[in-house]
Amino acid sequence: MPAVKSITSRDNPLYKRLKTLAGSTHQQRRSAHALLEGFHLASAYLDTAGQPETCVVTEGALRHDEAQAIVARIDAARIVTLPDALFGQLSNVVNGVGMLLLVERPAVPLPERVTQSCVVLDGVQDAGNVGSILRSAAAAGIGDVFCAPGTAYAWSSKVLRSAMGAHFLLRVHEDVEPHALIERLAAPVAITDSHGAQALYDCDLSGPLAWVFGNEGAGVSQAWRDAVTHRVTIPQPGGMESLNVAAAAAVCLFEQCRQQRGRT
Amino acid sequence: MPAVKSITSRDNPLYKRLKTLAGSTHQQRRSAHALLEGFHLASAYLDTAGQPETCVVTEGALRHDEAQAIVARIDAARIVTLPDALFGQLSNVVNGVGMLLLVERPAVPLPERVTQSCVVLDGVQDAGNVGSILRSAAAAGIGDVFCAPGTAYAWSSKVLRSAMGAHFLLRVHEDVEPHALIERLAAPVAITDSHGAQALYDCDLSGPLAWVFGNEGAGVSQAWRDAVTHRVTIPQPGGMESLNVAAAAAVCLFEQCRQQRGRT
Repeated sequence: MPAVKSITSRDNPLYKRLKTLAGSTHQQRRSAHALLEGFHLASAYLDTAGQPETCVVTEGALRHDEAQAIVARIDAARIVTLPDALFGQLSNVVNGVGMLLLVERPAVPLPERVTQSCVVLDGVQDAGNVGSILRSAAAAGIGDVFCAPGTAYAWSSKVLRSAMGAHFLLRVHEDVEPHALIERLAAPVAITDSHGAQALYDCDLSGPLAWVFGNEGAGVSQAWRDAVTHRVTIPQPGGMESLNVAAAAAVCLFEQCRQQRGRT
Repeated sequence: MPAVKSITSRDNPLYKRLKTLAGSTHQQRRSAHALLEGFHLASAYLDTAGQPETCVVTEGALRHDEAQAIVARIDAARIVTLPDALFGQLSNVVNGVGMLLLVERPAVPLPERVTQSCVVLDGVQDAGNVGSILRSAAAAGIGDVFCAPGTAYAWSSKVLRSAMGAHFLLRVHEDVEPHALIERLAAPVAITDSHGAQALYDCDLSGPLAWVFGNEGAGVSQAWRDAVTHRVTIPQPGGMESLNVAAAAAVCLFEQCRQQRGRT
């Protein structure tokens, strides 16, 4: 491996910048950057997006084959090593592997027309829920996920970790205003609703749909309610009133997959 | 309302006990107690389980109608008030409502025979995942959930919060050794598996099943793999390798509901 740069001082400007980003999802969002921690996310990024802005590794990590294989794919000029103590302050993972990539968030312009099935996150607040829905969406073959204001930042460390690389199989759009999207939508809008809606299994889901999943407490916002074509309910034989939003999203997206499976 | 006891000192023995429990899921598990925070969990408990050991409220909380309605259902001798500052150290919720119940975990003996559909959590580590699966299980009409060693403590604050009261619609069994349960099972065992398994939708799920959901990283343990009847896979048209375990559980449990729905 060619010689790489070492940072040993807390006062190094790049280190200070990394530390600011690591400590603040707000800063990550504002600067349109993300920190991808661990081998899995690093590989997934390199497979689909090309070179990171910077790859940060500990000396210790470099002794592992998996780290070496990743580092070998990155321009030496983009790699810096850090002592464990400095790296630890950037890490959001207990017992992490000592590697993270600083990357610019992929810029994804709003499509002119949305004709395929897609997912809208309309104020989903919990990062674990956002990550789980991205993962389910990617698995279900969805291409675009639109995040409306109020949704947890999709490129935060916690969402990235729980989505397990789904970000790199999807086009994830941030800060999408409902009206800007609604006027581009050529697919009917579907929401889940526990009252007076049609049972999921009785709906024809075989065509493209824009699935809108709302806030954990308040549900789907008025702008999207006004745009709805399909209000579906997941029949629940037990006594609960509702499902976790990520669980409901998985049930809906895979019921659509099941119905589409019969078509070919 | 009859006069209730006020605690104002950090050295009060009950307060010290509450603080120890609040700070340690391990202590909660060891003592077989749980802390139920907020109005929703308190109501759900009172509806199904009777009197708590202690109800802790702030003076401020008592000014709200919802708190008063809950407090009115509890023996005055079981109620204590705390100043906000002392309560804050017991709370796991940002902007909480200032009410929690200390309760003994319901003792649920292992049934002699398990003949109905049930869920086994086989080392599910993330508290949010455990909570989401409990919520889905209750919604799907499951009666028993068995937690094998290695699973997050189901009565921890975080699991309770994410399960939204599902605990009180289920029988949640803690520390269930695989062999103790397997010999009592009269229902076939189903697991999800991404390799060489049958598509979920092609399996007959209309009868009772014991669904086993495994650890987020390692999957289902060998003891349960050896007991499997149905290995099912959720067909994923997208490029991901797997779903979040709570998302997968929701898809499986509701596909079973869908198939059973046609039966009557």
